[in-house]
Amino acid sequence: MIVEKKVFELPAFKTANGASIADVRVGYETYGSLNADRSNAILITHFFSGTSHAAGKYRESDALPGYWDYLIGPGKPVDTNRYFVIASDTLVNLNARDPDVVTTGPASINPATGKPYGLSFPQVGIADFVAVQKALVESLGVNRLHAVMGPSMGGLQAYEWAASHPEMVGRLIAVISAAEADPWLIAWLDVWASPIRLDPHWRNGDYAPDAPPLAGLTQALKVVGLQANHWLWAEQTQGREFAVAGADPARDVNARYRIEATLESAASARAAVSDANHFLYLVKANQTFVAGGPGGVDRIRAPTLILYAPSDQVFAADWVLATAERIRSNGVAVETAAIGGILGHLDGVMSLAPHGGRISAFLARG
Amino acid sequence: MIVEKKVFELPAFKTANGASIADVRVGYETYGSLNADRSNAILITHFFSGTSHAAGKYRESDALPGYWDYLIGPGKPVDTNRYFVIASDTLVNLNARDPDVVTTGPASINPATGKPYGLSFPQVGIADFVAVQKALVESLGVNRLHAVMGPSMGGLQAYEWAASHPEMVGRLIAVISAAEADPWLIAWLDVWASPIRLDPHWRNGDYAPDAPPLAGLTQALKVVGLQANHWLWAEQTQGREFAVAGADPARDVNARYRIEATLESAASARAAVSDANHFLYLVKANQTFVAGGPGGVDRIRAPTLILYAPSDQVFAADWVLATAERIRSNGVAVETAAIGGILGHLDGVMSLAPHGGRISAFLARG
Repeated sequence: MIVEKKVFELPAFKTANGASIADVRVGYETYGSLNADRSNAILITHFFSGTSHAAGKYRESDALPGYWDYLIGPGKPVDTNRYFVIASDTLVNLNARDPDVVTTGPASINPATGKPYGLSFPQVGIADFVAVQKALVESLGVNRLHAVMGPSMGGLQAYEWAASHPEMVGRLIAVISAAEADPWLIAWLDVWASPIRLDPHWRNGDYAPDAPPLAGLTQALKVVGLQANHWLWAEQTQGREFAVAGADPARDVNARYRIEATLESAASARAAVSDANHFLYLVKANQTFVAGGPGGVDRIRAPTLILYAPSDQVFAADWVLATAERIRSNGVAVETAAIGGILGHLDGVMSLAPHGGRISAFLARG
Repeated sequence: MIVEKKVFELPAFKTANGASIADVRVGYETYGSLNADRSNAILITHFFSGTSHAAGKYRESDALPGYWDYLIGPGKPVDTNRYFVIASDTLVNLNARDPDVVTTGPASINPATGKPYGLSFPQVGIADFVAVQKALVESLGVNRLHAVMGPSMGGLQAYEWAASHPEMVGRLIAVISAAEADPWLIAWLDVWASPIRLDPHWRNGDYAPDAPPLAGLTQALKVVGLQANHWLWAEQTQGREFAVAGADPARDVNARYRIEATLESAASARAAVSDANHFLYLVKANQTFVAGGPGGVDRIRAPTLILYAPSDQVFAADWVLATAERIRSNGVAVETAAIGGILGHLDGVMSLAPHGGRISAFLARG
């Protein structure tokens, strides 16, 4: 499936806090076709380090397809022969330096100054991400979504949709996420952010595009990569092997273990296409998340499917299940299922294949 | 119980890697009296951020007693009317700037240069900590320990004692710790260390005593403080309250949540008495730990009591129980018990009171 990245533009956008942002642009892609009565649209919302690229390839030569390609496509659980799937980049998307990503945030040029916004970019929250998506889906002729579905921060957006626009959401599928940021997550998000603030190249957000705080951003992404994973992955794929054969970290102070090198290398590759200020804005958006604002979760009316990872180190299963119970307590049908695997939180992105039948049945239910 | 801090000195020490360190000094304290046949000594080994101060107070005016004061003392589970308890600061102890701590490490003056060692201090491991302790206990006339007992990194030292000197260890009590560093822990230890390396004041370890990398060290200690705790603590004691009443982090980009301020404040207080290079040396010592070297765990012969925290985020219960099984597989008596509480790893330091009877019975057993 070859997909095309498109751009949605909003000449003027007002944030939930009342700030104005001119020339908002976000990338999006669609799979399948909108039906005649415009009732078959499904919105896919992405995770913290994700993009609109949920399925397909942009080019035949792409090494990998979108992150949920195994779930979304013709004849797949989210069947694009049946559904019209929309996926967009969020505001302040992390991957601001990825040429396939279109987003507006601190790394964007402020039209008023001709320079990057930096920390002068207004604070935005998950509700703002959803407000931009609402304008996007309406621009495509969609006034009601058959479903909203996303993992992790994508799940937060799905909860926000269902809480703030209950009339527009037919079904909610929230994966590895709770309806508000719990204090444990709030504290970890602060840990994720701190390496960026320590990097002298950060300059309080005022770095030149060609002199970013790459070391701090790499460390920040390393923490995310580790916490989103699990010790079973570490044990079964990395072990206590040395990064370089024969270079024993117990005898050579500069030698490292394989797992350290694996995480560093993955984080370094991500850092090259990511932006440090966008990372900090995403941290704040996640920390301050409460679906629909205080009490908003009680406005959710859409039948809900919640998939959680029992060994999740980011969204503890306890918190996810508490969200399920809260929605259920309002008389809404809520189905929950545990995701298996050795990847902790990441199993919510990587390991949903065994739940394909559950997802397609949930989407087909009247 | 008022206790006195003493100093043990080794004019020359050779590390496991073959490096020489002159003038090694470590602090220690003792509680109770050595009996006539010198058979009643118990060694207490401290955790990553701990010191020799396991029980009692140095001065009546001290705000708090030693960390296991509720376990150690006259009539307590580790009964100082019956046992002679020894506790020492390790090499490269974190709290190098605490006037009550005596340790030798990168912050010490290198007698050959008259300046702090910095990163020229030789790499040391848990086996070196134990080698210094062995010289200390022998200097006190003790050739066999009734027991060795410690939490977390203290447990690593206890395993090391039992694996490397099986003839000297009568009983082993390892709390919240496994007999080797698992790859998950190795990776997290690297995360703990990274804020220090990012702090420009670190200067590759060559900072002046009055210009330490305090911001990086504070962030490092914040990660430790969080990971050693648990989301139930976060939920039950911190919640989503704001750090400053009325200053909503969702509306003010500089506002924070209470849990962020709580962790920052605790880490900042610790950083003031800690040393950044010592932190890095401790990280390396923990990462490279394998009790007694490869296969060493199979030399453990001492009856063993292992206490673990089921929700431990530092030493996963899976790994601790694997250690128990490994020692048991060699025909050694191993007793395990789960520690309750809402503090995760820290329950191994704070919440052992319900296990007092188990500990005293284990120590009394023939």
